Order: sequence, then structure tokens, then C-alpha cells
Amino acid sequence: MKTLAPLILVATCGGFSMSAGAQFAKTEDAIKYRQSVMFIQGQHVGRLGAMAAGRVPYDATAAVANAEVVAEISKLPWAGFGPGTEGGKAKPEIWQEQAKFKELSERLMSDTQKLQVAAKAGNLDALKAAMGTLGESCKSCHDTFRNK
Amino acid sequence: MKTLAPLILVATCGGFSMSAGAQFAKTEDAIKYRQSVMFIQGQHVGRLGAMAAGRVPYDATAAVANAEVVAEISKLPWAGFGPGTEGGKAKPEIWQEQAKFKELSERLMSDTQKLQVAAKAGNLDALKAAMGTLGESCKSCHDTFRNK
Repeated sequence: MKTLAPLILVATCGGFSMSAGAQFAKTEDAIKYRQSVMFIQGQHVGRLGAMAAGRVPYDATAAVANAEVVAEISKLPWAGFGPGTEGGKAKPEIWQEQAKFKELSERLMSDTQKLQVAAKAGNLDALKAAMGTLGESCKSCHDTFRNK
Repeated sequence: MKTLAPLILVATCGGFSMSAGAQFAKTEDAIKYRQSVMFIQGQHVGRLGAMAAGRVPYDATAAVANAEVVAEISKLPWAGFGPGTEGGKAKPEIWQEQAKFKELSERLMSDTQKLQVAAKAGNLDALKAAMGTLGESCKSCHDTFRNK
């Protein structure tokens, strides 16, 4: 049985970003980890959103830099939602509807990759479109899986 | 004067990671941002440290995955230490000794790049050596610039 343990661990945790994650000493660390990731992500998405909405001038270099961070950081939060880490603003549905949660997490990561491509295209319209798509993914997952 | 403003902003903030950062709505956001980054970094460094110290078995794949996150995330905290963001555990010396702070931040980023190379080498001795060097950089900066 001993040799099967790592395989089972991977299988039960969703199967992505696992090799760098899922080794939290306690549940509070997992909650703090995912909340930290989400806060950082929110800061960088917020800056791109301000450009897309015209609240700050479009800056192609800053857009690329922010989109790169968003694309990288969006890979991380999922490891913080392992088995037995219920708490914070996370709804129990995350652990009850793992397939749906995984689907939405993959959608987000796909959207942030596309956002990075759009930012590199260097025009505001591409950024606006990609931010619109990303915003829908954020909202969809938060509406379903996050308490207010 | 107006056209000089962005240049001055870059010059006063240390000149790295600026295009993705330094746009915090309030000081508390900057503090929360840098603390979030440090927490995430600490989690991944901790996992590598456990391997280096033999507390958990060496896992080459996990080592690479963690080192990649550390190399990326180590670029971020500095934007959270902009002018007027004193607070948290940060000592006032950060803003009084900017050259020293910048030197130590660049040393950290250099160390985490080397850590990533060492992890990819796929042997525990390389990882141990790189973690030793990184640990000294962490300690050096924390001893100088972080309150206990």
C-alpha cells in the first residue's frame, strides 16, 4: 500500500499544480495561502481593469507586466483547496462539486493565458475583450463557490 | 513638468518590477500585498527546506515546481514597499537605506534564479547548496529590515 500513497494523494486533489502544493502544515495555512494568492491576483487584475475601463491611461508595458503576473499566479490557488481545508469564504460546494470547481479553475487559467496574449498584442481593444472574458470567469466561480 | 512625472515615480521606487506594481489604492493594500507574497514564498521555500534538511524525501519534480514558484514570486514583494508604505513588520530602515534594501532584494532574486537552476539539475546536493545560499539572503534581509 505504501507505494500507492502519493498516487492517491494526487488523484484526490484535482491533479493540477499538485507537485508544488498541497503540503500545508495546517488548514489555516491553506486558507491563508489561497487568500494571499487571490489578493495578489485581485491587485493585478484590478490594474488591468482600470485600464480596460479607461479609469487610467492604457499603458502597454504595464499591461503586459500585470498580465504576466496574473497568468502565473492563477496557477496557484487551487492547491490551497485540498481535502479538509474548508473555511474562510470558501463554500462547502467546492468540496462537494469537485468536477465543477476544477472546470471553472481550468477556465480561469485558460483565460489568464489568453489575457497575456492579448496584452502582448499591444492594443486596448484586445485587452478589453480578454478582460471581459476573464471577468465573467471570476464572477461565475465566485458566485458559485465563494461566500459574500 | 507633467511629462517628467512617470520618470520620477520610477526613479523613487527602486526601478524594478515597477510596471506591474506601485499602484496601490491605499497603504494597507501595499502592506497586505507584500505580506501575501512573503507568505506564499515562505510556504514554497519551506517545502524545499524540508527536502534539503531531509525531513521529507527528496522529490525532484516537486523541487522544480516549488523552485519555479519561488523564482517568480520573489520578483513581486518589492513593489509593495513604495514610498509612504511604512507599516506592518517593515522597519523604517527600508525607506532610509534604499540602496541597501535594493541590493538585498536583488541578491534574493539572483539566489532564487540559481535555486531554480539547482532544482532542475535534479540532485539533492545542488538543492541543499542553493537553499543554504538563499537562506542566508533571507536572514540577512530580515535581520536588517524586518521587526520580530
